[in-house]
Amino acid sequence: MTQLIREELSTRNQIVRPTTIIESDSLSNVTGAKLTIATETFQVTGSFKFRAAYNLVTKVPETTLITASSGNFGQAFACACAIAGKTAIVVMPTTSAKVKIEATRSYGAIVDLVDTSTKSRAQRVSELAAENPGARICSAYDDPLVIEGNATLGTELAQLNREIDFVIVPIGGGGLSSGIVSGLKKASRNNIQVIGAEPLLANDASKSLKAGKIIELTAEPPTLADGARTISLGKHNWEILKTGLKDIVEVPEDLIEEAVRLYFNKAHLKVEPTGALALGAVLARPELFRGKNVMCIVSGGNVDPETYFRILSKST
Amino acid sequence: MTQLIREELSTRNQIVRPTTIIESDSLSNVTGAKLTIATETFQVTGSFKFRAAYNLVTKVPETTLITASSGNFGQAFACACAIAGKTAIVVMPTTSAKVKIEATRSYGAIVDLVDTSTKSRAQRVSELAAENPGARICSAYDDPLVIEGNATLGTELAQLNREIDFVIVPIGGGGLSSGIVSGLKKASRNNIQVIGAEPLLANDASKSLKAGKIIELTAEPPTLADGARTISLGKHNWEILKTGLKDIVEVPEDLIEEAVRLYFNKAHLKVEPTGALALGAVLARPELFRGKNVMCIVSGGNVDPETYFRILSKST
Repeated sequence: MTQLIREELSTRNQIVRPTTIIESDSLSNVTGAKLTIATETFQVTGSFKFRAAYNLVTKVPETTLITASSGNFGQAFACACAIAGKTAIVVMPTTSAKVKIEATRSYGAIVDLVDTSTKSRAQRVSELAAENPGARICSAYDDPLVIEGNATLGTELAQLNREIDFVIVPIGGGGLSSGIVSGLKKASRNNIQVIGAEPLLANDASKSLKAGKIIELTAEPPTLADGARTISLGKHNWEILKTGLKDIVEVPEDLIEEAVRLYFNKAHLKVEPTGALALGAVLARPELFRGKNVMCIVSGGNVDPETYFRILSKST
Repeated sequence: MTQLIREELSTRNQIVRPTTIIESDSLSNVTGAKLTIATETFQVTGSFKFRAAYNLVTKVPETTLITASSGNFGQAFACACAIAGKTAIVVMPTTSAKVKIEATRSYGAIVDLVDTSTKSRAQRVSELAAENPGARICSAYDDPLVIEGNATLGTELAQLNREIDFVIVPIGGGGLSSGIVSGLKKASRNNIQVIGAEPLLANDASKSLKAGKIIELTAEPPTLADGARTISLGKHNWEILKTGLKDIVEVPEDLIEEAVRLYFNKAHLKVEPTGALALGAVLARPELFRGKNVMCIVSGGNVDPETYFRILSKST
């Protein structure tokens, strides 16, 4: 991050940007629901994760912070640490996309590459914590400060003063969904039903909700929605979600891709596969949402160009 | 347009959507200017043209309206007529992209295809006017009602209460730029300098500003920015622009493409080539804008997928 940007961000009254609300008659037309989009693609670092990272990084006392993330949290965390003047160490697999490693480094973070075929990310994080006494290990989702940061999006939705029947939110570790449930609850918007949108291939949260307890997958699921490849919900998240979620819709891979294409073709919106889950849920269960006021959360826009073009080049 | 959408649009308090403001630290970082984006890609029909079309269509007394447009104005005009319950006849060349013909038809407009190798669009419009006594011929830019409609964007920018040194706006026939100059003037924001961004290949407005009178090109210029292929400014537009514009930056084709890529890669924004002209102007004249508060207007997002992918697939 250049000095210009760091200064620019540090001097703003409001570091976290408000979400961007987009109406799309074309998408409403396609789905039969009255759709509104709340997109975090224009958030700092291109995803909602900055809300969590900035809240966490600025509220903990430690000045060296360690996390493991090859995705949006890593970038958001690195950017937040740069603004706060703290040291960020981000553990990423050696197989991570070069562009993601570079993006994380561009904010001044120390990127620690680990060969996950011989050592897990968690093991490497423990080693680094031992090497850096006084450092704090940070979770991308399972932390009250992460939930509190993401809750600002729920608060914003409540303050829109719109008629909303459903908020549909992508679900991976549960950081965003538990934040939105918290934010809406705090604003006493109990009449809004929050629905999780989870890849069918990564349906641990859906299984958990049915079982009434956290169910773990046995391996990282191969869904295109890389932000939802977590093997289970976080404990702090589960405490909020087990009563706060109305339902979870399981979205097949082809509908995730279809939703990415629809956002591009009908709403001029560049969305990453995980970010398209909410619209995918509407496509998967149209009868549930027909004629209703539905707010689809788009969690982020950071997608490799190759992946994106491959999805778009298939016919809708 | 389906009944659902027509009803939905007709019952809204506000039919024209407010512009979408996007901050992009990454783009500021690339250009050295303090950039803010005001994008009309999320406007009804995907471009600013709906502001003009809706104002025009609802304020004239005629119930059958004729225009010639193969681009954004045609779609916006058709949509506005559908909402107002008026008959739209849109003259388009037989060579128009199928997707554009279909989009215009989808709003219920009568699309009249003309073989421009044997008859000009203007000739066909005259014929249709003769066939439809009482119908009104509508210009996409050279009309006070068009300028008044587009001025709402200038008013919105003024009401942001932001420090703005420059507003950069794409310039073709001059409809949007004259609207923005009018809107800012009406709000007494005389300290904001409005700069036109015009393709170097279609630099009639730039020549006109230097000559102090309207200069016409001899043929439609082959610029990628199809919204700026007009051969001259409109008369009503010129009256406002000749004193209202601070300058016009001529943007080479490669920088138009570069700006399209930067919007996609750095700001997650899908922009049509004409819509990328303002950022192209910053790239063409970086010294003019360095360290300044610059508002780049993105006029629309309607681009053929093939054209868009071709541009994006080139390296930045």
